[in-house]
Amino acid sequence: MKEEGIKVAVIGASGYTGQELLRLLLMHPKVELVALTSRKEAGRSLGEVFPGFSGAPGIERLTFMEPDVDVIVACGADYAFLALPHDVSGGLAQSLLSRGIRVIDLSADFRLRDSSAYAEFYGGQHPAPHLLPDAVYGLPELKRKEIAGADLVASPGCYPTSILIPLIPLVMEKIIDPESIRASSVSGASGAGKKADISLLFTEVNESVRAYGAPKHRHISEIEQELSLAAGQEVVVSFVPHLMPVTRGIASTIFCDLAGPVESASARVEETMNRFYQESCFVRILGENVFADTKNVSRTNFIDLGWVIDPRTRRLIVSSAEDNLGKGAGGQAIQSFNLMNGLSEDCGLLNF
Amino acid sequence: MKEEGIKVAVIGASGYTGQELLRLLLMHPKVELVALTSRKEAGRSLGEVFPGFSGAPGIERLTFMEPDVDVIVACGADYAFLALPHDVSGGLAQSLLSRGIRVIDLSADFRLRDSSAYAEFYGGQHPAPHLLPDAVYGLPELKRKEIAGADLVASPGCYPTSILIPLIPLVMEKIIDPESIRASSVSGASGAGKKADISLLFTEVNESVRAYGAPKHRHISEIEQELSLAAGQEVVVSFVPHLMPVTRGIASTIFCDLAGPVESASARVEETMNRFYQESCFVRILGENVFADTKNVSRTNFIDLGWVIDPRTRRLIVSSAEDNLGKGAGGQAIQSFNLMNGLSEDCGLLNF
Amino acid sequence: MKEEGIKVAVIGASGYTGQELLRLLLMHPKVELVALTSRKEAGRSLGEVFPGFSGAPGIERLTFMEPDVDVIVACGADYAFLALPHDVSGGLAQSLLSRGIRVIDLSADFRLRDSSAYAEFYGGQHPAPHLLPDAVYGLPELKRKEIAGADLVASPGCYPTSILIPLIPLVMEKIIDPESIRASSVSGASGAGKKADISLLFTEVNESVRAYGAPKHRHISEIEQELSLAAGQEVVVSFVPHLMPVTRGIASTIFCDLAGPVESASARVEETMNRFYQESCFVRILGENVFADTKNVSRTNFIDLGWVIDPRTRRLIVSSAEDNLGKGAGGQAIQSFNLMNGLSEDCGLLNF
Amino acid sequence: MKEEGIKVAVIGASGYTGQELLRLLLMHPKVELVALTSRKEAGRSLGEVFPGFSGAPGIERLTFMEPDVDVIVACGADYAFLALPHDVSGGLAQSLLSRGIRVIDLSADFRLRDSSAYAEFYGGQHPAPHLLPDAVYGLPELKRKEIAGADLVASPGCYPTSILIPLIPLVMEKIIDPESIRASSVSGASGAGKKADISLLFTEVNESVRAYGAPKHRHISEIEQELSLAAGQEVVVSFVPHLMPVTRGIASTIFCDLAGPVESASARVEETMNRFYQESCFVRILGENVFADTKNVSRTNFIDLGWVIDPRTRRLIVSSAEDNLGKGAGGQAIQSFNLMNGLSEDCGLLNF
Repeated sequence: MKEEGIKVAVIGASGYTGQELLRLLLMHPKVELVALTSRKEAGRSLGEVFPGFSGAPGIERLTFMEPDVDVIVACGADYAFLALPHDVSGGLAQSLLSRGIRVIDLSADFRLRDSSAYAEFYGGQHPAPHLLPDAVYGLPELKRKEIAGADLVASPGCYPTSILIPLIPLVMEKIIDPESIRASSVSGASGAGKKADISLLFTEVNESVRAYGAPKHRHISEIEQELSLAAGQEVVVSFVPHLMPVTRGIASTIFCDLAGPVESASARVEETMNRFYQESCFVRILGENVFADTKNVSRTNFIDLGWVIDPRTRRLIVSSAEDNLGKGAGGQAIQSFNLMNGLSEDCGLLNF
Repeated sequence: MKEEGIKVAVIGASGYTGQELLRLLLMHPKVELVALTSRKEAGRSLGEVFPGFSGAPGIERLTFMEPDVDVIVACGADYAFLALPHDVSGGLAQSLLSRGIRVIDLSADFRLRDSSAYAEFYGGQHPAPHLLPDAVYGLPELKRKEIAGADLVASPGCYPTSILIPLIPLVMEKIIDPESIRASSVSGASGAGKKADISLLFTEVNESVRAYGAPKHRHISEIEQELSLAAGQEVVVSFVPHLMPVTRGIASTIFCDLAGPVESASARVEETMNRFYQESCFVRILGENVFADTKNVSRTNFIDLGWVIDPRTRRLIVSSAEDNLGKGAGGQAIQSFNLMNGLSEDCGLLNF
Repeated sequence: MKEEGIKVAVIGASGYTGQELLRLLLMHPKVELVALTSRKEAGRSLGEVFPGFSGAPGIERLTFMEPDVDVIVACGADYAFLALPHDVSGGLAQSLLSRGIRVIDLSADFRLRDSSAYAEFYGGQHPAPHLLPDAVYGLPELKRKEIAGADLVASPGCYPTSILIPLIPLVMEKIIDPESIRASSVSGASGAGKKADISLLFTEVNESVRAYGAPKHRHISEIEQELSLAAGQEVVVSFVPHLMPVTRGIASTIFCDLAGPVESASARVEETMNRFYQESCFVRILGENVFADTKNVSRTNFIDLGWVIDPRTRRLIVSSAEDNLGKGAGGQAIQSFNLMNGLSEDCGLLNF
Repeated sequence: MKEEGIKVAVIGASGYTGQELLRLLLMHPKVELVALTSRKEAGRSLGEVFPGFSGAPGIERLTFMEPDVDVIVACGADYAFLALPHDVSGGLAQSLLSRGIRVIDLSADFRLRDSSAYAEFYGGQHPAPHLLPDAVYGLPELKRKEIAGADLVASPGCYPTSILIPLIPLVMEKIIDPESIRASSVSGASGAGKKADISLLFTEVNESVRAYGAPKHRHISEIEQELSLAAGQEVVVSFVPHLMPVTRGIASTIFCDLAGPVESASARVEETMNRFYQESCFVRILGENVFADTKNVSRTNFIDLGWVIDPRTRRLIVSSAEDNLGKGAGGQAIQSFNLMNGLSEDCGLLNF
């Protein structure tokens, strides 16, 4: 964290995504953290809530406060990261924007173009539908320019990132049949949030793996929205998330039917992936016959991609790995922030 | 373990499958363990190699020996469980059978009807092709009678069990399109065996999940063989196994296209599963909209089955969980042994 | 579980200790479970609450009920296991005893002889002090006869069991200086109970080890009481428990000063341990220069003991391992139950 | 990693300590990695051996080579980190020093002042006893000046660091009786090294905790050497290390007898710790009645210290936590390197 840096607030900073945002922002060379909020932890110092951050420069000045917009403004924040539950986030984003603060929202509130899709997948009315037209879906690899100019960035979900990054180029180049997509993802327990829920206790999660949320997990809505845009046709996917006993990481394995001849698929996939991501430093192309391992991306902003081609079934199977709190949440949000500020995209994010 | 019980030898008893066989046989009320072999541990007592078994009745008489057929015969064994690498197993099975010992082989050597499939998936010539016609694929839920009368049972692989048990009824009843099968499985590290391999160290497996072996993992061969028999047509499947940081357990998530109308699928799947497995005490039907959790089957011989129907994609997604060392290996082999001896199928296996 | 067996109720059956009691009682050859209570789960079937138990014989008849004494009596229970919080347990035990039901209490309420020690360590007044004189501290290896005749058994805590079993013989035989005891224990997360507490989430416990509760953890009170009785003098100990990321298991490492000459210590310790526990099938003496591993006792009723002698410091360092839910809770309680019923001490407990 | 930075070689870079050194040096703002060696991986690129480092600036130039001194010199290295087995390290250090390269040795070869202690604890003759007088024990908190001027730094072991940092001030200030020390430490599996050893497989380490190496673990030799120097008298300690199922982290719990009155101990300990470490940014004093948690120091160079005072036994119990690969190995070595180069002590190490 830098004195006299870009002034940043983190709203909802006491959960796992908030903690990862703080971790990265404390080490970011261009950022000055000026406010962090949490209803639950208001009044406690940052070092008290997260003793692991003790010793970070400037940390002694930081105390959790209530999420009061006036106070956040008074702290001088020019940017706010929102790590709040959906619905809550939308209302606060609106207030902050009206006070001139640019917002990177990590909730689902501004990810869906269509407020009826929001109602279908999240229930209830959208909290601020008039903001939807100006919100940008914050996948930097796809929307660098739009993000750079946006005042409201809707940072993608962890599962969608792990599925969209590998699939968008394949769908755009018509290498795969967009109607054939089946994705199976395994996620670490931090993805379930810091909730006092018995099903998330160590004893319940350890030595266990289990699917959940299928067939209509909320994240399907943004996966289908972005794939449909890329395909130029409506895309419907199958998606099954699983919970496994690791703290961080998502591995996605995605079955797709090849749209063209299997003989040339190997060259086409490789060429497409490399071309599409040649300027994307956080997408690491592992290549054919390599599978991504969450261990290699843990605590980083990288997403690793590998694949195999199965001539027997004429299918392409894609494998991705990311840190659900990194590229799947906090890291990616900061990547957008860097773009919004004309900084190098990897500023403060080139960690290993 | 019972004195004066059915005399049993365990060949290759020092690996994880061997250890699980010993664990279950030591507690089996009708079995007398008379011989256990391991080239590596020959000469050491059972309690020394597996201190966790100390205190089991009769254990003090048991010492690992070399896998010498004459000695095994001299010990009076009437049954032998073979927990050996493929190729090695076939030769030994032949010798034991010729001496009148009934064999339950846990290797791949007698699982494939066709020795050319063996050559394709396992490499090299089959060690005893003339025995193939008489070997029975030891999935008790499907072949109770054949197993009861067999002298040579080829106990199925862990992944195949987790995929065949849910799919065979669906394929036989033509509820799903057999050409549409894509399976994603996650397995605990004990499935990789007790090998001094750096990639299996705690530090490499912990906080990691990774796919491997696709698109042509060896276990595909027996999955396709049995599904083809059930479907009455050649079936080719996609299958991606993953390694995850748990000791025991396999969870399989299988995407299938519904063959008939989606409206009646719910009732048809439920009815088929219940009917098919009504006398199979180890298959627990969890029902629609429930996912199987490896935690509930760990150290048991159960396999749990749940599923969801996705009307948006007209697909059925099936979820199974088993213990890879239990129903996926040692437990299932003993289930066959019980059938071969006219014992209750669950004798010694009703553990929780 | 046996029809027409000894009729047993489990009170407070929805936590981890309750679950382990149920697991063992469902497999116990002489027990008929007639009632299980849980305020939280009342009205739900056993299979619904613990799907892992589905398929156990007789389970379909079992439904959680409110802990109402009249109902428990009406179910015909002759024995009740109490897996309740301290203070709550005492009152209920009193009611059950007055109705002729023999009680094995797994709470702390009847472990301390002295109600002022209870007040000091647990706070508040003892719920039923007049019952203390008749309660027996249920460490079967030390008090077989008393337990056999008792109506109220106070089953020991998990940490005390792991420390008392190795130390009592050494203190009684004056091999160690009773004022020199320092114990460091590491426990699995199930020992902390099934509570919706953020500090017990997978993400908080995984990749973490931390001490807690020292220097005056509640379990010290019963450790000191029993060691003082064994030593014939007041004993005060240091004890530091730790939480580590395993589900089950306690390993205790205990530093003691040798009371006599170091030269003869090796023989004296070995002889004492072997003699003291020669009829105790659940105490496995690993011997000198061997350390106990929780992996070998997990899901069993065994406690393993090893030790080293350090001539440089003239100290004896003892190592024990047990399953905190097994020998440290449910298994041990059933061991007492077996004694109370004249059954073999290992009845239903010889699992591996 | 910086072009035109201080030229550094890492010798023995393929193990876990080597990997952590690389991780930190790749991100170090003043370092240019010019050579990395590994007999096993010679010829393979850094990105191939450690795919997690792909994307680090400059990494494409780095390939593992044989540990040939001429080649290392030719690469222009001015500093070499040695992450080699003891005995191997000593010889290579000598060659490198003779060519003008300053050495930070992470093996045990130069930690003991006395080559006879080396022979006692490590066996065999010391490989380069004439270098011992000039080697500095690289605990920066104690020996900043000596390290700054040294050509050969012997970086301490992981367990010793976790025990010496809390104890040295207490011993120097005579707050504790130096003859009373008993330390119990639990370490993550990465501390056992990257060895193809069955006892380190995931399946063997998971759900297990076990002591090992006591009563005379090799690390005792340097613990006693440094405590004796601090105490001005010969100190002998009890030390029991344990292996637990986490990847990184050591927690040490240390029992000490208070030398002075228990009443004033609280103030004296607090004042001593704070004074002693007031300029040591990596020592975080948690204070009385707080226990250190490995989770808070993982992947950092911090060591956290807490303690409790037990008036009943007149003992002080100290708790420390560090990352065995960080402050316990690679991080601490770089801390010394920073001092040797007149850099800020925390340069490249202030990670969270």
